[in-house]
Amino acid sequence: MTTQKTRIGLIGTGRIGQLHAENIAANPDIQLAWVADPFVDGARTIAARFGGTPTNDATEILDRKRVDAVLVASPTPTHIDLIEACIDHGLPVLCEKPIDLDISRVNRLRAKVASSDVPVALGFNQRFDPGFAEAHRRVSAGEIRDVEQLTIVSRDLAAPPESYIAVSGGIFRDMTIHDFDMARFFLGDVVEVSATGSCLFDEGARRQGDDDTVVVTLKARTGAIATIINSRHSAIGYEQRLEAFGAGGVIQVVNAPSSLVSRSGAQGVETKSPYIESFLDRYAAAYAAELAEFIKLTRGEASTSPTVEDGRAALMIADAAQRAAQERTVVTIGAE
Amino acid sequence: MTTQKTRIGLIGTGRIGQLHAENIAANPDIQLAWVADPFVDGARTIAARFGGTPTNDATEILDRKRVDAVLVASPTPTHIDLIEACIDHGLPVLCEKPIDLDISRVNRLRAKVASSDVPVALGFNQRFDPGFAEAHRRVSAGEIRDVEQLTIVSRDLAAPPESYIAVSGGIFRDMTIHDFDMARFFLGDVVEVSATGSCLFDEGARRQGDDDTVVVTLKARTGAIATIINSRHSAIGYEQRLEAFGAGGVIQVVNAPSSLVSRSGAQGVETKSPYIESFLDRYAAAYAAELAEFIKLTRGEASTSPTVEDGRAALMIADAAQRAAQERTVVTIGAE
Amino acid sequence: MTTQKTRIGLIGTGRIGQLHAENIAANPDIQLAWVADPFVDGARTIAARFGGTPTNDATEILDRKRVDAVLVASPTPTHIDLIEACIDHGLPVLCEKPIDLDISRVNRLRAKVASSDVPVALGFNQRFDPGFAEAHRRVSAGEIRDVEQLTIVSRDLAAPPESYIAVSGGIFRDMTIHDFDMARFFLGDVVEVSATGSCLFDEGARRQGDDDTVVVTLKARTGAIATIINSRHSAIGYEQRLEAFGAGGVIQVVNAPSSLVSRSGAQGVETKSPYIESFLDRYAAAYAAELAEFIKLTRGEASTSPTVEDGRAALMIADAAQRAAQERTVVTIGAE
Amino acid sequence: MTTQKTRIGLIGTGRIGQLHAENIAANPDIQLAWVADPFVDGARTIAARFGGTPTNDATEILDRKRVDAVLVASPTPTHIDLIEACIDHGLPVLCEKPIDLDISRVNRLRAKVASSDVPVALGFNQRFDPGFAEAHRRVSAGEIRDVEQLTIVSRDLAAPPESYIAVSGGIFRDMTIHDFDMARFFLGDVVEVSATGSCLFDEGARRQGDDDTVVVTLKARTGAIATIINSRHSAIGYEQRLEAFGAGGVIQVVNAPSSLVSRSGAQGVETKSPYIESFLDRYAAAYAAELAEFIKLTRGEASTSPTVEDGRAALMIADAAQRAAQERTVVTIGAE
Repeated sequence: MTTQKTRIGLIGTGRIGQLHAENIAANPDIQLAWVADPFVDGARTIAARFGGTPTNDATEILDRKRVDAVLVASPTPTHIDLIEACIDHGLPVLCEKPIDLDISRVNRLRAKVASSDVPVALGFNQRFDPGFAEAHRRVSAGEIRDVEQLTIVSRDLAAPPESYIAVSGGIFRDMTIHDFDMARFFLGDVVEVSATGSCLFDEGARRQGDDDTVVVTLKARTGAIATIINSRHSAIGYEQRLEAFGAGGVIQVVNAPSSLVSRSGAQGVETKSPYIESFLDRYAAAYAAELAEFIKLTRGEASTSPTVEDGRAALMIADAAQRAAQERTVVTIGAE
Repeated sequence: MTTQKTRIGLIGTGRIGQLHAENIAANPDIQLAWVADPFVDGARTIAARFGGTPTNDATEILDRKRVDAVLVASPTPTHIDLIEACIDHGLPVLCEKPIDLDISRVNRLRAKVASSDVPVALGFNQRFDPGFAEAHRRVSAGEIRDVEQLTIVSRDLAAPPESYIAVSGGIFRDMTIHDFDMARFFLGDVVEVSATGSCLFDEGARRQGDDDTVVVTLKARTGAIATIINSRHSAIGYEQRLEAFGAGGVIQVVNAPSSLVSRSGAQGVETKSPYIESFLDRYAAAYAAELAEFIKLTRGEASTSPTVEDGRAALMIADAAQRAAQERTVVTIGAE
Repeated sequence: MTTQKTRIGLIGTGRIGQLHAENIAANPDIQLAWVADPFVDGARTIAARFGGTPTNDATEILDRKRVDAVLVASPTPTHIDLIEACIDHGLPVLCEKPIDLDISRVNRLRAKVASSDVPVALGFNQRFDPGFAEAHRRVSAGEIRDVEQLTIVSRDLAAPPESYIAVSGGIFRDMTIHDFDMARFFLGDVVEVSATGSCLFDEGARRQGDDDTVVVTLKARTGAIATIINSRHSAIGYEQRLEAFGAGGVIQVVNAPSSLVSRSGAQGVETKSPYIESFLDRYAAAYAAELAEFIKLTRGEASTSPTVEDGRAALMIADAAQRAAQERTVVTIGAE
Repeated sequence: MTTQKTRIGLIGTGRIGQLHAENIAANPDIQLAWVADPFVDGARTIAARFGGTPTNDATEILDRKRVDAVLVASPTPTHIDLIEACIDHGLPVLCEKPIDLDISRVNRLRAKVASSDVPVALGFNQRFDPGFAEAHRRVSAGEIRDVEQLTIVSRDLAAPPESYIAVSGGIFRDMTIHDFDMARFFLGDVVEVSATGSCLFDEGARRQGDDDTVVVTLKARTGAIATIINSRHSAIGYEQRLEAFGAGGVIQVVNAPSSLVSRSGAQGVETKSPYIESFLDRYAAAYAAELAEFIKLTRGEASTSPTVEDGRAALMIADAAQRAAQERTVVTIGAE
């Protein structure tokens, strides 16, 4: 098959941008055509390794003669402007999450997306993790009948720097937002949000008025209840577990082990360094699958890429969780 | 050693009463001296199998010439009167949970217990389960440092009959109460309660205005957050799991498997009939250990038997959870 | 049902004799009627705890007016004489393994058993272990199709005293014999035996010319190959594992865990004190089931109790393994 | 660092050759310079994807002006000639296993290697598998003290075509040879070999006089006993397990799971498609690490690459196993 390779313009060359560049290079259907970063050295390094033309000016990329689609991996405050510019140039765009921290700006974008036919995808990569995707497929196939309870445990290896927390929008909008999307993925619309938070170990979070330990309870329109358990640190490695419970049983996704070796001795059985330590390693396959799904979208094929609607819904839950935790109440989310 | 056997009077010969009779018979330090049940045939059957004198009148038992201690396994509404009568007769008593469904009655009993020196123990048997007890010992020893998150999953095999639900005081006071006690066992005082409930599958519960699916979030005075996940049914057998998370790692108690056999085939690996199906089997060792601990109490030895204070605290949390779920708010529990 | 209880005469009150006494007491269908041991104090202690009349003379027991069946748990050299006496008195007998260490004596007994209709059962208790029995049932039901490979790992907690080794008949006849029976249970007749042994850690075994570490390979008439891996010590507790492999997959019986608790930390995941430490604990349920099956036999009901034929076949394999290891050859076992 | 990239000449572009090409391309320290295959289209395809000059004539590659090192992935009968030619041209070479099926030819090569200083490495890739390597490191560090028993279970997904079996040298030289090397890796020199084989399911093997099911027992010079269990098919996926047992406990490497998802239902707990199905996937990391280690060797750095001595020793064990199985005896391996 001699399909033309899709030319990708990559904006942003931080940790996630680099990962995307690597995945673009490894995917035979696409090529890295342009790379933009205001720190042009970052763009140059990426281009040297994975191909494409480097630039310090993202607007240079937004040209259908130069690229067929755009991947936005720049800081959150730039997301909406870049998505809007892509729409204006008729360029399909995959943007990293979150869309924005301000729901009113997201609502403005929502209107623009709705009135355009340019595909816009949102980077909720965890939906494409082989484990979560298999669990979702099997739950959707009715293996446990209707889901009654969904339990998600996500724990980061270590708290981010205070400077990051200061601009993150808080733990619910920054970290839990992935789990909010996962809850919607499995349960559909959420109508009620409770949240309990504590700041137990991270001085940076405390100074910023943020929590490092939270539990959120969501009620779906179906009546099913989701529980999300988060911590900003974890001695045992990056934790990402999920359990769906229904009348027919339980579907479980366990943490990814980092070794197949165990030692049994007089004191017990132990396995070394239990779980994969970085979300980049944990979700390597997910990022590649997310990209492949986006390419389908750019080609007009059926695609399950998450949308701006998904991003907006997750942000609304995050806002509700924030208010629930602060005001010690239960927050209802309206139909719209 | 020729210690005199402690003579036990057992009141109530239902499912739990029978189990206690069996444990009394198997414990070489004690003997079943009297057995009371208004349905005297139950008392006779037990006495024939495990020894003792049967009677249909519990008051006959309350005599220090006849018994050294009393075990109350009769219906909840009789608990407080029987405990008070035991105190009046100077008889140490172990009473099944819950003490009562009405906190004002419990407060009245509390005063009487406080002004007496007759030992009163409460049947929170799960504290004595080898797994939970080992986890508690190891957490107390600092193996994971301070607990930051505690997660408990308890699911019954099948919903009880509607007639039982009607007098149970609701799922929080009847079922979750064990988990409330376990949360206090691991975290100490609870200061804040959130709860979300749904009625998803049990028509009997729905008619009684009760839930069959609940999630409760507790904040401890320490700031630690406990999450309790309950369901009135479970296709995979009786579920009782616990996970304590701290800066130093995770202590986990898994469900008890019912078989050491697994089969791996082309479709996957499977083990048959995953978990023990009855709480009587699951907690057989716990009930025996609870009894042994109570015997220590009756002999004036150091004992960790749960007290009326523990029963009262759990009931207060249950009341708070009930209100939190109904009024969709967060309920604060006062210092006293 | 008012079936008369079967009266059991127990001969031998060592560790296994005591366990049998306990199981007899716990089984509502039978009663301990007589207990014999040349060390009459042992018999008296057992009788005081579990009932029956103590005696120092086993022949006193062998009287159908006194007992309905006999359980032989005395030292190996007494087994054949006692079984023969039971046959002569028309008393069904369950005898502990091994029948004897001398195949010619076993052959003599075999003839006597064949010409009598008194039931004689042999104590290969592991067939009644819930895990092994489930595995056998599922293999027999064809869940993995024909068995092609059977792998058994048995490791004792610690080597026995040298005085025991001196009279044990060697590791193959004393320890591996259980696994030989298990191999026959799963695979049927064995036609070829290889064995490799080393003495690596136990000075007592070395002085007695015995091995402490052996691997035996058996070829069944079907062509299936069984591998048995034994060690006289194990730091991780008593090990008893089995794996049957066929074209349809694998049926596996794992070691019995001693705790449901695990701890995950920065160094790894560990569970404490991995496996049950004593074969008496490990096979508690098996001994009780073995007894129940023998009772069926005494009552003329269908029964799967192992027979003298099973004991003889296992001993022949043990003899062959001993010769294979010593002469560094492969030993063929004849049709008979 | 501006180290010159090592130029690799790849000979052979079958399944393994392609994998090596991919690994060469992914390793920043090396480059694919030449690719040879008599079927020149194979060479061209590889060169187009991963770089280098294609040729149908392997001798063209053997030139230090063109390449710095050679990787031999051609059929077994060509191995020795190619290794000798590499030595003659002063080119370090990594050759796939086995060196050859004829020990006398291997001995001839051995002499040549010994009298040269050109590095020759052998492709026992499993030594570089992260799991086996970690187990070896921990065993070497004394975590279980001296190894007393080593148990290896290797089972292929499905039997190879009869045409392959016909030239494979038999199951011991073709398949078990990896396990023989692994046994030597953990236990050192082997002095005694027993083997039992059956042909139970593969008609092709039967026609070729080969077995499809074998068990081999090795005694090491230390007295430790290794057991190797092989089958040419496995319904549950590619099986590669290892267990080292010593006085201090057990180090275990389990099969690699293909999914983190499990489902628990009323019938049991099951995980889908249990194990990775292809040795190429299972050992992807091992092949990459093997290559990196070889590069160190070519650069004169310390390296643990297996040698011709390792290849020869494994072949001698395979020959002994073949004879042991056929002649139903135990074969001793001499000091040399």
